[in-house]
Amino acid sequence: MSGYVGDGSERAARAWLSRACEPGEYALWAYVESQGAVEVAAQLAAGQAPRRLQRLCGARAGEDHCQRDLDAAHRVGARLIIPGDAEWPADGVRLMSIASAAGADGCVPPLSIWARGGGRLSALIDRSVALVGARAATAYGTSVCEQIAYGLAGRDVTVISGGAFGIDRAAHAAALAANGVTIAALACGIDRFYPKSNANLLEHITVDGLLLSEWAPGAAPMRHRFLVRNRLIAALSSGTVVVEAALRSGARSTAARARELGKVVMAVPGPVTSAMSDGCLHMLREEAALAVGSAEHVMEATGVSGVDMLPLERGPLRPGDDLDPLHRRVLEAVPTRRPAATDSIAVVAGASVPDTLRALTMLELSELVEQYEGRWRKCRVATSP
Amino acid sequence: MSGYVGDGSERAARAWLSRACEPGEYALWAYVESQGAVEVAAQLAAGQAPRRLQRLCGARAGEDHCQRDLDAAHRVGARLIIPGDAEWPADGVRLMSIASAAGADGCVPPLSIWARGGGRLSALIDRSVALVGARAATAYGTSVCEQIAYGLAGRDVTVISGGAFGIDRAAHAAALAANGVTIAALACGIDRFYPKSNANLLEHITVDGLLLSEWAPGAAPMRHRFLVRNRLIAALSSGTVVVEAALRSGARSTAARARELGKVVMAVPGPVTSAMSDGCLHMLREEAALAVGSAEHVMEATGVSGVDMLPLERGPLRPGDDLDPLHRRVLEAVPTRRPAATDSIAVVAGASVPDTLRALTMLELSELVEQYEGRWRKCRVATSP
Repeated sequence: MSGYVGDGSERAARAWLSRACEPGEYALWAYVESQGAVEVAAQLAAGQAPRRLQRLCGARAGEDHCQRDLDAAHRVGARLIIPGDAEWPADGVRLMSIASAAGADGCVPPLSIWARGGGRLSALIDRSVALVGARAATAYGTSVCEQIAYGLAGRDVTVISGGAFGIDRAAHAAALAANGVTIAALACGIDRFYPKSNANLLEHITVDGLLLSEWAPGAAPMRHRFLVRNRLIAALSSGTVVVEAALRSGARSTAARARELGKVVMAVPGPVTSAMSDGCLHMLREEAALAVGSAEHVMEATGVSGVDMLPLERGPLRPGDDLDPLHRRVLEAVPTRRPAATDSIAVVAGASVPDTLRALTMLELSELVEQYEGRWRKCRVATSP
Repeated sequence: MSGYVGDGSERAARAWLSRACEPGEYALWAYVESQGAVEVAAQLAAGQAPRRLQRLCGARAGEDHCQRDLDAAHRVGARLIIPGDAEWPADGVRLMSIASAAGADGCVPPLSIWARGGGRLSALIDRSVALVGARAATAYGTSVCEQIAYGLAGRDVTVISGGAFGIDRAAHAAALAANGVTIAALACGIDRFYPKSNANLLEHITVDGLLLSEWAPGAAPMRHRFLVRNRLIAALSSGTVVVEAALRSGARSTAARARELGKVVMAVPGPVTSAMSDGCLHMLREEAALAVGSAEHVMEATGVSGVDMLPLERGPLRPGDDLDPLHRRVLEAVPTRRPAATDSIAVVAGASVPDTLRALTMLELSELVEQYEGRWRKCRVATSP
């Protein structure tokens, strides 16, 4: 075994670990916490780490590409963010350590994060929301995702997603269209644009936003990595919105991690006839997800800013809204076309004649009824449905 | 004033009251409870009831059409159901009296119920669900309503609605299509088919189901009566489903009454882009309504039968589902086309060579990978998405 050489630095050791070990193993993270990354990398490279950790590392312990990886990152303008760096997402990582210590196996903190782009990670996630969902999104899901992402980005909220097709792509693209900032957390090396058809989008993200990955440059987007990656999306955002998801969907694993981390979990309702909304329906029914349909709803739920108050929702005001039951009944009893006498209106309304007359007078002042030769009919405005 | 004459019977007195007084006034209901309907009708007709109640009755106290109304009902095959009758919905009325005594002003019990049809009221509502919603329903809402109503009626659940256009119509019609039973609670006299275009439907309902009304024969469908009528729909059903509703909708008042009566309140999610689903979205967001999308969901929520258990929802099982993380990683690392050696698979999987070999052997037994001249590739079945 050639093993780890590095330059003795914490950063080199964590770069080495990012290639040698798959992230998401609590035992490894805890061991690094207690022994330090330099020591653990050296032990693993020498085959002298505790047996269980050594097995996690496996055959990759014999390789040392850490300087090559740091160089590869540098060539594409990327960097490795590690604990202690100003932009390290300390709050999110602390929540992950608490949750995983409490048994949330899917919330193990990252050892390091490869980052590519002009944004500073900790600043970008200060106000941030994750929008996730199906790759095979429908036109409905794509459109709603765009509206929400555009609205959030326009209010200086960072949109976090996974850089994939469908909902992810719509979220990133709409955030950029709003001149906002977006973060894509990838399941492959930071130097790869995957999927390839999203290359332009991912490159655009790097201008003011960030691409993130826990895997070393060149790493392939293997399926299990997407699930591990999802916890980072959940941890870096104030809340996770599942825009569209089948019953079985990676987006729901992101939501599960968000819940374990105590973050707000939201789902966009869709047609109950759409398989692509089945996952959201299930979240609403069984997982107490909050139903959201707009950026305002999401802002209100995540509380990313104290000033983002939602105005009270109600339908349009109609004539007679503020009437008491008697006045309402009298108004109902007044004909629309042929004026009627007070007596006959009283019978229809089920009220006494004096009460009816008083009510009619009040309704006349409100311009809801009018007199016509001593008889009454509704004003035009009072007859709308 | 000619006043109340009747025949001295409880039924005649309640028939008289149904024309003389608008239902839904707690004071009147409580007075009838304490004094008896015959005595209260006589007092009102003589103008000697307590002032507040006399005013509720108003000019209508001077009319006596009670025998005419009973005859009119008889001519269309209808009857007046009153407390003490075998089919009086005693349980629902008891809930209404409790709720209204506790301050739920919209839940005042009925004094009597005009009924037209072959069904026995108390039997029909033993297993019953209300499906309500917008008159201006969309194709989506109509279709989902039909599916739910058809599913409920096919399981011997009575579908209750309001006999109107849109969602109401779809609910009744689909219940009939399933050879099920349905009840329409009207806001006009039992002898009127309103709206007229629903006349055939309403007549069809009377065969095995019921038309219900608290208003005397001939009564007009005035707007405030729809709101009063809604509480009966809520009270007679185990739960209320709002299928489609704008933010401002009578269906939401039915849901509010159902909540006050301790019944299950459900809403069907729809596109967040649809104004006709805004009311449902609001109910999900602000009123803790349960999201439902199928008859099964509704059955489960209302518990109309102990045997109506919902099977566990999950997506289709995929190859490798039951694998532990190591086996899953190894499976991911096995190529689809060109077979690879164990060593190189171990490097990609991040596992030791012995662990990788053991995993490959297990995967081979599960027919997920196959050997080819000492190298490995995925079986066809394992490569599906």
